[in-house]
Amino acid sequence: MKQAIVVGAGLVGSLWAVFLARRGYAVKVFERRPEMRAVGYRGGRSINLAMSERGWKAAEMAGIREKMAHVALPMPGRMMHAVSGNLTYQPYGKTGEAIYSVSRGGLNLELLNIASQFPNVEFFFEHRCVDVDLNESFATFEDMKTGEIKRIEAPLVFGTDGAFSAVRYSLQRTDRFDYAQKYLDHGYKELNITPDEAGRHRMQPDALHIWPRGNHMLIALPNADGTFTCTLFLPFEGPVAFENIKTDADVMDFFREYYPDVPALMPDFVEQFRENPTSSLCTVRCRPWQWQGRILLLGDAAHAIVPFFGQGMNAGFEDCTILDAMYDEFGGDWSRMIPEFARRRQPDGDAIADLALRNFIEMRDLVADPKFLLRKKIAAALHEKHPEFLPVYSMVSFSNTPYRVALREDDAQNQLFAEILAIPGIEQNWDRPEVDALLQAYLSNRQA
Amino acid sequence: MKQAIVVGAGLVGSLWAVFLARRGYAVKVFERRPEMRAVGYRGGRSINLAMSERGWKAAEMAGIREKMAHVALPMPGRMMHAVSGNLTYQPYGKTGEAIYSVSRGGLNLELLNIASQFPNVEFFFEHRCVDVDLNESFATFEDMKTGEIKRIEAPLVFGTDGAFSAVRYSLQRTDRFDYAQKYLDHGYKELNITPDEAGRHRMQPDALHIWPRGNHMLIALPNADGTFTCTLFLPFEGPVAFENIKTDADVMDFFREYYPDVPALMPDFVEQFRENPTSSLCTVRCRPWQWQGRILLLGDAAHAIVPFFGQGMNAGFEDCTILDAMYDEFGGDWSRMIPEFARRRQPDGDAIADLALRNFIEMRDLVADPKFLLRKKIAAALHEKHPEFLPVYSMVSFSNTPYRVALREDDAQNQLFAEILAIPGIEQNWDRPEVDALLQAYLSNRQA
Repeated sequence: MKQAIVVGAGLVGSLWAVFLARRGYAVKVFERRPEMRAVGYRGGRSINLAMSERGWKAAEMAGIREKMAHVALPMPGRMMHAVSGNLTYQPYGKTGEAIYSVSRGGLNLELLNIASQFPNVEFFFEHRCVDVDLNESFATFEDMKTGEIKRIEAPLVFGTDGAFSAVRYSLQRTDRFDYAQKYLDHGYKELNITPDEAGRHRMQPDALHIWPRGNHMLIALPNADGTFTCTLFLPFEGPVAFENIKTDADVMDFFREYYPDVPALMPDFVEQFRENPTSSLCTVRCRPWQWQGRILLLGDAAHAIVPFFGQGMNAGFEDCTILDAMYDEFGGDWSRMIPEFARRRQPDGDAIADLALRNFIEMRDLVADPKFLLRKKIAAALHEKHPEFLPVYSMVSFSNTPYRVALREDDAQNQLFAEILAIPGIEQNWDRPEVDALLQAYLSNRQA
Repeated sequence: MKQAIVVGAGLVGSLWAVFLARRGYAVKVFERRPEMRAVGYRGGRSINLAMSERGWKAAEMAGIREKMAHVALPMPGRMMHAVSGNLTYQPYGKTGEAIYSVSRGGLNLELLNIASQFPNVEFFFEHRCVDVDLNESFATFEDMKTGEIKRIEAPLVFGTDGAFSAVRYSLQRTDRFDYAQKYLDHGYKELNITPDEAGRHRMQPDALHIWPRGNHMLIALPNADGTFTCTLFLPFEGPVAFENIKTDADVMDFFREYYPDVPALMPDFVEQFRENPTSSLCTVRCRPWQWQGRILLLGDAAHAIVPFFGQGMNAGFEDCTILDAMYDEFGGDWSRMIPEFARRRQPDGDAIADLALRNFIEMRDLVADPKFLLRKKIAAALHEKHPEFLPVYSMVSFSNTPYRVALREDDAQNQLFAEILAIPGIEQNWDRPEVDALLQAYLSNRQA
């Protein structure tokens, strides 16, 4: 039987193990963490995710779409919380379109369960990848329970071991390997809103809540158990920054000034702020994602991104669906398929990294800007009238358009709306011939 | 006695060991390669370097200026070789200003000799750095002769271990460490021109020779023994690229077409091309260069750059002179000095990386452009007339102006000369009031 090694049993690793098992491979999956189904999910990452079209497509192929749909909470739009307490709602797409809040741990456990049903998938938990041999077909792991070093035959290695990938560290020293890790000036802290006395959500559950505050913001995603997971994004350094919120009084002052409606939702916000860790956010880009048609990086290991477009998991899952589709195209010849996948897909990884960084500006800043809200309304109206015009958010979240195309569209649409919003009186009426003319010029340009 | 560890006994490491020894430190220097004075210099790098003002300043402080001056060959200008064989000479600066061709191996051996004269400097060759402990004051080395692993107390660690620094790999996994390694699309191959029958240089020895060919180029630096070290810079991939020059016939065709005057200087060019390795070129940027005021990267470990400004060694040496000057400013308090040096100096490292990449365009392309030659002439004339106007090349090579200032000047001067060269008839006469007016505006802008 053909052999493959998967390093990392997170979301992408366990999904990819399923795909490989379906193709008849004997799959060994190595994971540094303990068996999650025995000890509960332990991640260093946020506890929920926004699943959108690309993620659902992969879930469908893995046969868990229906199961996930039962526990996923639809978020058809954003609810913006002003400092005044005023709420503004903005749909993400058309009626029926939504992104979905899902539990990272729950999804990971489901994927592990499905993978384990294949007799040709074997899991090795508490095994740390030490090194992947670049010259010989071996990978080295440390059994963390016994300290034993195991040298495993590895004709095919898939590195799905995340932003701090050990497989990628092995590739980093190869000649002409481009690599960049860049941290955001902002860190984040997770906070939790418990259900009300009746066990219900304390805010509207079918929305992604945002408190945009310019250089910082709070967001909240609903969970199926009535809670919300909140994330505060704030600079590490500066006048309004984690470094200057030290005492309980600082925390209280900070929330009173910027997030005055939060204490009522989260009475223990001071304790939570004090106890919960502050984490950093990193973008990773590298090239090539592969070595000699035999070792391939997938998911965050190849393209770790900031979470502001909710595309990290979706992008990693799309890696799997695209690579699986290429399996047929290349008749299962990995030595040709792996370099070609790395070549084709890498510009998409770079593009979603850029889009995610841009969306941070949009979320923390622009969503509170009347001009931006107007743009969103005009974009939705134009899409209604001319379905071939798709706003970039929809392209990323509700279609399978390659990310690199969406990035190009983002540049072009920014230009288009700069022109549309400059039309005098556009605030009063945007259903006018000048707008249509600009859109037509834009659409015909795009075809050229 | 106060202790310090230096990892890497290359140019910067051995120079820095001298500076530390002078300050009364017990210095242990670890080097992966064998003792160079016993086995001869073995480097992965080019065999000669261009030493300029910043390098000389450090050589002076190390007490080897005079010794180096005896073996350094002045190159006061560039000699451009056209495909036709036509030669054009362009001085780098004013009369008396030159960059100097020095032997990397010779300079390294001198520095090792000087460092060894201090009783408080101890060398450990064939010791590979395995890891630098981030929590405790220890560093781990492997004695490559015996395989023994040695854990060394290391209250202060200086990582001068080059572009592929092991010390930097230890820092790379620390939170919020930004890191980027980016390879050029071009590789390089060294070739050698032997002396003529009388033992003399086959070309004018007091110049840096350039054969600019647009997307590729050849350069030659004179050595004291009558030879020239040539370097061919050529894309790895593409129509005219290393990948397409495979057979001896390919090599002959390539030189006949682009470098027709070279075979007469280098009769064995085909053998040399075949036998000599093709190497890659990488830019490394990272931040912060330090960890907890105790571990500091210097030289290529912190800022590896491409060689086109001849500043790699000069920048590393300047790290040492600047840090040594800060020793007095901070009264030898490393815990404050190291973070402050890293903060102050890092923008200069990034700036010289950018300038070096820009100079590649200049060398391979612009030096053959009449407009560019005209710009150089006007710049020299302006500098003569207004000494406060310093061309960027002179600022980098003949002054100690911070690199970040030189990079800003480069942007500003590019703008200035775009305006000057747009003056009708400028080719015929550049000593005219419009030019002076533009320069005056530029100079007063700079002061603002």
